[in-house]
Amino acid sequence: MRIEERLAELGLTLPAEPAVPPPATGTLPPDWVRVVGRRVLVSGHGPLLPDGRPAGPFGRVPDEVPLEIAQESAQLAALAVLGTVQRAVGDLDRIAAWVTVSGFVFAEPGYRHTTAVLNAFSAVVHDVFGREVGAHARTAIGAATLPLGVPVVVAAELELRS
Amino acid sequence: MRIEERLAELGLTLPAEPAVPPPATGTLPPDWVRVVGRRVLVSGHGPLLPDGRPAGPFGRVPDEVPLEIAQESAQLAALAVLGTVQRAVGDLDRIAAWVTVSGFVFAEPGYRHTTAVLNAFSAVVHDVFGREVGAHARTAIGAATLPLGVPVVVAAELELRS
Amino acid sequence: MRIEERLAELGLTLPAEPAVPPPATGTLPPDWVRVVGRRVLVSGHGPLLPDGRPAGPFGRVPDEVPLEIAQESAQLAALAVLGTVQRAVGDLDRIAAWVTVSGFVFAEPGYRHTTAVLNAFSAVVHDVFGREVGAHARTAIGAATLPLGVPVVVAAELELRS
Repeated sequence: MRIEERLAELGLTLPAEPAVPPPATGTLPPDWVRVVGRRVLVSGHGPLLPDGRPAGPFGRVPDEVPLEIAQESAQLAALAVLGTVQRAVGDLDRIAAWVTVSGFVFAEPGYRHTTAVLNAFSAVVHDVFGREVGAHARTAIGAATLPLGVPVVVAAELELRS
Repeated sequence: MRIEERLAELGLTLPAEPAVPPPATGTLPPDWVRVVGRRVLVSGHGPLLPDGRPAGPFGRVPDEVPLEIAQESAQLAALAVLGTVQRAVGDLDRIAAWVTVSGFVFAEPGYRHTTAVLNAFSAVVHDVFGREVGAHARTAIGAATLPLGVPVVVAAELELRS
Repeated sequence: MRIEERLAELGLTLPAEPAVPPPATGTLPPDWVRVVGRRVLVSGHGPLLPDGRPAGPFGRVPDEVPLEIAQESAQLAALAVLGTVQRAVGDLDRIAAWVTVSGFVFAEPGYRHTTAVLNAFSAVVHDVFGREVGAHARTAIGAATLPLGVPVVVAAELELRS
């Protein structure tokens, strides 16, 4: 339980399961994670409140949501991803490696600092897991829009210890 | 051939190989799928007509293509992906697991319902493969534009039985 | 060293490690690649100058950067990816297979030729690695914006020989 201790040390609390509006009648709710062998594939997560509801502010970076606030959203998205992974695998110490992080920023056309938003996500990963386990390939793409208007959505792949 | 029976039961027909305009002279046509070991990586697919040509309507969601129509495009994209996978692996019963679905919607800036478009894709996967095999991690990103102006493009990874 | 010979034959030179502005104090620089077992996950790369600095022109396709120029940027991005992979694995002959290429074009809303931009990336891969090793699944998405305003960013996954 070293990772859980590290989270406590950093004062970080993982939110509840994402509680987003359900899809229309007759369709299943989305899967937040898919574990296939040692691979842990995490769906796109936005920032969540502690109870799992989407966390504001909503809107475009930087004209509606300034960079500093979007970075806080990215931190909350990181905690949301960790919460989902923890529920799926039981113990975050089972993570051998972060593999990839696919980050999307709801951004004004031509905004040049989507990487700065995602750096806040990566910083949480590095702080919690350390450099060796936490290293990850990453993209930081500007999206025309994101679900519910959240400023940032991140999908990820992690690998479990054998 | 249970999956093929299930497709017939649902009245679903898979389209022919994607027939899109070829690239400029001297470059190879794109690969629609790459099979590496048990991993099946599927290129981004848009909606196709039965003969493999891109299926309209073309345009942005929701101002040019309303949500309900974009959901039909997402269903056609799902069938296009299944057609490509079937041609690559021979028999859809070889699929052990859907792994990830990366969905992109050609969307108006700030449109908040890209997940609703992708739910139509996921519903086809769940209906055809069932919950256990069909479960998948997913992203639903709003793109500034997509090839040929199709309203939705989906890439995916699936895993074969060992 | 057959791939290196092939690069020389084609007159292609790989740039130095990406030299992009560092993140804010206290955060680690991004990882350009993550090797996990035989999998080589490459972060999003834009076009680079020989010394590793971002290569212009910067701007949106096609209104600020015409297609032909964006294709040159895509070629430079391909060389940047190869440089990163070479530094990570030592010898490009260790590549058994390209797996996926995720391409993002900083594009005008509704621009329909993002695939044409990415074809220039894929052409480098095919020219250098040949059809069998170089085959890859691909997406070609239009982004609202990209880091630093580069016209194209490409992430990739490759597999090493066992």
